[in-house]
Amino acid sequence: VPATKLPNPFSREEYLGRLRRCREAMTAVDAHCFVVTDASNICYLTGYGADSSYIMQALVIHADAELPTLYLRRQDSPAGRQMAWLPDEHVVGYPESFIGDDRIDGFDYLFDRLASQRGLERVGLEFGAISGATLEKLRARYGRLALVDLSDTIERLRLTKSPAEIAVMREASEITDLAMARAAEVVRPGRRECDAAAEITAALIRGTKRYGGERFGGILMPGGAQTGTSHINWTDQPIERGKHYNLEFGGFRFRYAVALMRSLAVGTPSQKLSRLYGYMIEGCNTALAAVKPGVTLGAIATAYCEVVKKGGYIKDSRCGYPIGIDWLETSCSLRTDDLTVVAPNMVFHLMLGMWLEEDFGAVISETFVVTLTGHEVFSRYPRELIVV
Amino acid sequence: VPATKLPNPFSREEYLGRLRRCREAMTAVDAHCFVVTDASNICYLTGYGADSSYIMQALVIHADAELPTLYLRRQDSPAGRQMAWLPDEHVVGYPESFIGDDRIDGFDYLFDRLASQRGLERVGLEFGAISGATLEKLRARYGRLALVDLSDTIERLRLTKSPAEIAVMREASEITDLAMARAAEVVRPGRRECDAAAEITAALIRGTKRYGGERFGGILMPGGAQTGTSHINWTDQPIERGKHYNLEFGGFRFRYAVALMRSLAVGTPSQKLSRLYGYMIEGCNTALAAVKPGVTLGAIATAYCEVVKKGGYIKDSRCGYPIGIDWLETSCSLRTDDLTVVAPNMVFHLMLGMWLEEDFGAVISETFVVTLTGHEVFSRYPRELIVV
Repeated sequence: VPATKLPNPFSREEYLGRLRRCREAMTAVDAHCFVVTDASNICYLTGYGADSSYIMQALVIHADAELPTLYLRRQDSPAGRQMAWLPDEHVVGYPESFIGDDRIDGFDYLFDRLASQRGLERVGLEFGAISGATLEKLRARYGRLALVDLSDTIERLRLTKSPAEIAVMREASEITDLAMARAAEVVRPGRRECDAAAEITAALIRGTKRYGGERFGGILMPGGAQTGTSHINWTDQPIERGKHYNLEFGGFRFRYAVALMRSLAVGTPSQKLSRLYGYMIEGCNTALAAVKPGVTLGAIATAYCEVVKKGGYIKDSRCGYPIGIDWLETSCSLRTDDLTVVAPNMVFHLMLGMWLEEDFGAVISETFVVTLTGHEVFSRYPRELIVV
Repeated sequence: VPATKLPNPFSREEYLGRLRRCREAMTAVDAHCFVVTDASNICYLTGYGADSSYIMQALVIHADAELPTLYLRRQDSPAGRQMAWLPDEHVVGYPESFIGDDRIDGFDYLFDRLASQRGLERVGLEFGAISGATLEKLRARYGRLALVDLSDTIERLRLTKSPAEIAVMREASEITDLAMARAAEVVRPGRRECDAAAEITAALIRGTKRYGGERFGGILMPGGAQTGTSHINWTDQPIERGKHYNLEFGGFRFRYAVALMRSLAVGTPSQKLSRLYGYMIEGCNTALAAVKPGVTLGAIATAYCEVVKKGGYIKDSRCGYPIGIDWLETSCSLRTDDLTVVAPNMVFHLMLGMWLEEDFGAVISETFVVTLTGHEVFSRYPRELIVV
């Protein structure tokens, strides 16, 4: 009996196209097969997205075969068959004896199989997605195989989204906006920060009435002196009038994220915060207005930096990155010196956090898709400082 | 003005002791310094635990210095000063220009500094916690430095907890139990799975009245045909009478997790589930009864496997692992062939999930600490199939 497949918004033809583009990149470096281990890349090519990547898992693409094979530990292989669009026999569960042993792991299982295949000499791997220990082990144990670094190959393919991917991200964005609206309701003086965080997180998981949200990495909402930091946990102390909070989170659909950031002031915002935020909004508007096919990411980032510079502010960190499966993509950045040329259907998180002092900063962001003539922002949430 | 430190349950003396044990391990392999990059290990040695590990960060321990130095990207360095117990000048923010550039990253910044230090020749690294690409780059660029693999060094230290760590885990467990009680309230026919997941997650974040919960990786609650899987997301479909759910989650305090798993039947459980669960409970009790200082992890795992085997069931996956910061620890496993000898103050997640068919499985677990004479289970939640 074949596994009952869970819902998947992408067609078989779309997946075959993604794989074909992978094989073209493999041909360019004469790789006979490609062992994909990055969890987001596996999701991109198969739809498999259970939270199992802390144990070795791999999608093996052969240059001369249309269908790849997904290798998961035995325990996770039923999830593979339920989530991946592949035929059941293309999901292999390797024995549990390879888990939790300090001498062997799933790479030994897989490479023993690969090493025994005739004609298979050049094996692509993502050197950035396997550990140094694994790479040294593979070189030592399978000296006959030439290992070729294919890091970033799939990340580059992921940069331009399909219409179906953009449709999924619109759903994720609806969830994000609901959660931001919920934040504006629950961040209130006297309530503990963790209690507000619980409500915002619940909104992201509940999703909309038509579809739910997903398991994800959690929200950020540093407040008070923690607004000088970007990735710190909330506290269990009461929310206080006069503080502001830097909200950062995103809804997820089929592991695609749409991020949104706003600062939220509890009570009348300080002059210092209001002045800064005014420049940030203007900078955000100016950067978005610069977006159209043919411009560089550097030009968009520079547009922002020049606006805030007028106010005496320096944006020292990058202005964002491509976004999609599991949030951050790594193929390029909204850095002032990034020469990547923008093209239709690329999606970016324009991330304009300003962490200016050890204990003071503010955030604003938008996730946008590049269109034929400019851009479209996913969120409908007002682009302003939230004041409650 | 020194940074205002966030609360930290561990004393300076405790951290100094952890570092001293690290340096003893470094001395054994004659490493002049140790570049720790694993996020959980950095947290263990410093208290720093913001969610920034997707970008290079490192704690550098010198063999001849009492205090190490934490290297974070500039944007995260205020969080480092607020969270780490170290003096402010021992938290270095490296320039944002090293972020999002495909030619250089924080390793180049750090190793340029290390390579210029006299007498520093043997550098310890966790080969399991850096990428293959990074290891090859460091070997190529810094040929003068001998790189020594210190993977698992700190993981082995983490295995035995201090009284202060156990106290923190008791708090985490209180949160876990509250969330399990909440699950038994909200998993109800007609409600969507995602709506129940939202409530359970909110309980984990809210925590208790005395202290809050934290940002964490999310809960698991596969139901129906997904009970054959272990790491899949909930759906947005309605909960149905006759199904059961495999609940797996844990509360967090200061990044320490205490895990708990139970199956929950909606309506009268099937004969098939009840029979299996009876053996699982008996197996769990038997395994726990086998715990005392001096026995091996293998003996505990075997005790479980023999009980369920009487019922005709095979436990093919390991029976658990040490648990602490960020949940899973990797220094050993509750595998039938693991010869690690149990000692007081080690903490394990006895994880007894049975994924028996593609679409059928059940789970039970306990997190326990080894005592001088036996064990103590953290949770007070009844060890039985939850029926609602």
